Amino acid sequence: MHVDLFIHSAAQLLTLASDGPKRGVAMEELGIIEHGAVAVKDGLIGLVGPTSEVRGQVTAAEEIDAAGKVVMPGFVDPHTHLVFASDRADEFEQRIKGATYMEIMAAGGGIMNTVRATRAASLDELVAQARERLDEMLAHGTTTAEAKTGYGLDIENELKMLEAIWILDKAHPIDLIPTLLGAHAVPTEYQGRAEEYVDLVIDEMLPLVVQRGLEELWGRKEEAPAAPPLFCDVFCEEGVFTLEESRRILTKAKELGLGLKIHADEFSSLGGAALAAELGTIAVAHLLCTPPEEMALLAEAGTIAVLLPGGTFGLGQRAYADARGLIAAGVPVALGTDLNPGTCWCESMQLIAALACRFMEMTPAEAIVAATINAAHAVRLGDQVGSLEVGKKADILILDIPDYRHLSYRFGVNLVDKVIKGGGGSAVPSATLRTGLTTGLVVGGLHLA
Amino acid sequence: MHVDLFIHSAAQLLTLASDGPKRGVAMEELGIIEHGAVAVKDGLIGLVGPTSEVRGQVTAAEEIDAAGKVVMPGFVDPHTHLVFASDRADEFEQRIKGATYMEIMAAGGGIMNTVRATRAASLDELVAQARERLDEMLAHGTTTAEAKTGYGLDIENELKMLEAIWILDKAHPIDLIPTLLGAHAVPTEYQGRAEEYVDLVIDEMLPLVVQRGLEELWGRKEEAPAAPPLFCDVFCEEGVFTLEESRRILTKAKELGLGLKIHADEFSSLGGAALAAELGTIAVAHLLCTPPEEMALLAEAGTIAVLLPGGTFGLGQRAYADARGLIAAGVPVALGTDLNPGTCWCESMQLIAALACRFMEMTPAEAIVAATINAAHAVRLGDQVGSLEVGKKADILILDIPDYRHLSYRFGVNLVDKVIKGGGGSAVPSATLRTGLTTGLVVGGLHLA
Repeated sequence: MHVDLFIHSAAQLLTLASDGPKRGVAMEELGIIEHGAVAVKDGLIGLVGPTSEVRGQVTAAEEIDAAGKVVMPGFVDPHTHLVFASDRADEFEQRIKGATYMEIMAAGGGIMNTVRATRAASLDELVAQARERLDEMLAHGTTTAEAKTGYGLDIENELKMLEAIWILDKAHPIDLIPTLLGAHAVPTEYQGRAEEYVDLVIDEMLPLVVQRGLEELWGRKEEAPAAPPLFCDVFCEEGVFTLEESRRILTKAKELGLGLKIHADEFSSLGGAALAAELGTIAVAHLLCTPPEEMALLAEAGTIAVLLPGGTFGLGQRAYADARGLIAAGVPVALGTDLNPGTCWCESMQLIAALACRFMEMTPAEAIVAATINAAHAVRLGDQVGSLEVGKKADILILDIPDYRHLSYRFGVNLVDKVIKGGGGSAVPSATLRTGLTTGLVVGGLHLA
Repeated sequence: MHVDLFIHSAAQLLTLASDGPKRGVAMEELGIIEHGAVAVKDGLIGLVGPTSEVRGQVTAAEEIDAAGKVVMPGFVDPHTHLVFASDRADEFEQRIKGATYMEIMAAGGGIMNTVRATRAASLDELVAQARERLDEMLAHGTTTAEAKTGYGLDIENELKMLEAIWILDKAHPIDLIPTLLGAHAVPTEYQGRAEEYVDLVIDEMLPLVVQRGLEELWGRKEEAPAAPPLFCDVFCEEGVFTLEESRRILTKAKELGLGLKIHADEFSSLGGAALAAELGTIAVAHLLCTPPEEMALLAEAGTIAVLLPGGTFGLGQRAYADARGLIAAGVPVALGTDLNPGTCWCESMQLIAALACRFMEMTPAEAIVAATINAAHAVRLGDQVGSLEVGKKADILILDIPDYRHLSYRFGVNLVDKVIKGGGGSAVPSATLRTGLTTGLVVGGLHLA
């Protein structure tokens, strides 16, 4: 086989091969091939195996010697609020000086602070600001990411955010999976009239987003089988959307053919996890206070738990999700950054893995499974990315570490040596990538940096 | 004035100007110049001020436009165990799976694990491994760092570590300040004979290190006024070295003309902070359980508290030093990485600042003071580095952020755009720097990457 790229001699090549989301003890299985190799052809994985076996089967246009290094699939970040305007550094400082989240909210801060800035921003400004974050994500090894709306909270601005995600998906190597989060908060102008806002979401916003998102931007599945899924998400939480409101919104989204997600049990347990299991949502995020009986329901339904330790860390708090309980219950666990301007401006899945190991007692192997194959399933792309298997997209990381456990053992720096973004995403000229990328970047077999 | 480099138009230039270590409310004072500029001549700061004022006074060989960015002094990392061989990733995994630190110790792990590897390593191996860490530190903005011995624990290997530090100081742009930590632990071969090991340190190791370090390697101060101080440090802790042993070692070190430091109150309060105040040690590290009356003694003595939140984080623990209590007591507070293979393999002072803000309630401004000017005083170089003042070394960071508060608000990535290492350190060809540095690096006014 003549291939475009042949990466060989890796100290450890982690295939993450799997038939589906990994659960239980399988979450420790990385599919390690020592002295491993992977060959890339036409943006896809052509061959994987020990270097001694693969070498004889390929001639290659380009070779990379990964001796002493770890080779693994690119990270999939299944939960981000990538697109937003401005920042909330002032609130960060106020919290340190003792202001409570509620005081900041009362002063007009919190999510509505970002909503005001995002509404005021032009589409171009939103794209430009998010693009810098995408560059940082790519440099730290993320090759596929979910991106939510939810700072527009009206039809015009939710559609603007959706369009920003579409532009970024086309313009940037990272593949983006869009999620409508019109039900992220009740906007100021609907205070005290939450039910009316829920009606707006159900009767107008969701149908319009489906039309714009699925029919006009990404194309319907039958015409464009490679089009990403479009998800609908709801923030089911005390003081935000009730269980019944969440059920109404998600039921409508299901009727419209959207994939379902839910933010549940972040601060209080309203039954959101049980609702996720009942409706067959693909993923449920946060789960800081999920009761054991609802964990069992998630396991039975096959819903993926997306844990977001960056939010707890970002707020300087101490309560993390019970990852060990979820894994023991048989729930497939994924990790995401929750990248957002309020609680977690962190683009690095590496730091998220470091947090997961330290504060949720996940092993380094479980953290890698959660950040790759399980995260891929959490955005319904488990058949295309998240593992190094023949036919999948050639989204590959070369890490400058001798053993996979260094990925969470060492922290605060970028351990990625090279990112190969071979499958999907448009090749972009290096000049449009932020200078000073930490990594040597390869897109479609071509070195960009 | 004709200058080598003119950096101008910074959104915020932080001078950190100060007559000495900053204490109390002064720890919030960054000396912010909006639209600021700094000029570099012969490796030193030539001029600092508003761009409109400085521009008319200089002609420059090279200019950098820092519009929209923050310019500040390079980080000083006052507490590192930079030089070590191998890693302890296996112990990291064992701890996650429930092994206690004591069980790991009993199985031959812990510090002695690193001591065995470091003794077995050649000088060249030690230098090569530490050099990769120095590259990472520089990329993340550290321009001056302390480096301890303490994994040799016999005369031959402590001297080997000292020589490695000397070679790295000469070969790498980062300026290193050596600290003898022969009293880091009682080595295995002296178990049950701690007093004999203390005698060895006092009677043989310290005099030999002074001869080798001060007389042969760095040169005595009178002949080489730019030579760095040489410090002696002791791990005063239950089960390690007693207060009396610590006093004996530090008293001898003082007689030999060494600067003094102490690790105190990390796990138990033995009176180490009071000893630090009594002996006039320049810095005391850890301080997780220091009683208020000893804080008052530190404030009176002017001893700098070097806080190391990376160790707590690295171990996945929850107890941090009482930074607010120390600041309120008038103790000057500095921050360090504590870079080491057991508890904190983290080269980034940026992550340390992020931890300090979240878990020790330090404000973003206090964290910057603690990581620059106060850290410089903690290695007795407050007159040369740690602030952007005329005559100091031109060790300058350009951060790709619009406001200094982003430095701890955002986390897990590298916010440094460029590092200028103008003062001290040998210029090294870029080929010897690890590829993929996150930053554009400027040494002596010449771009390296």
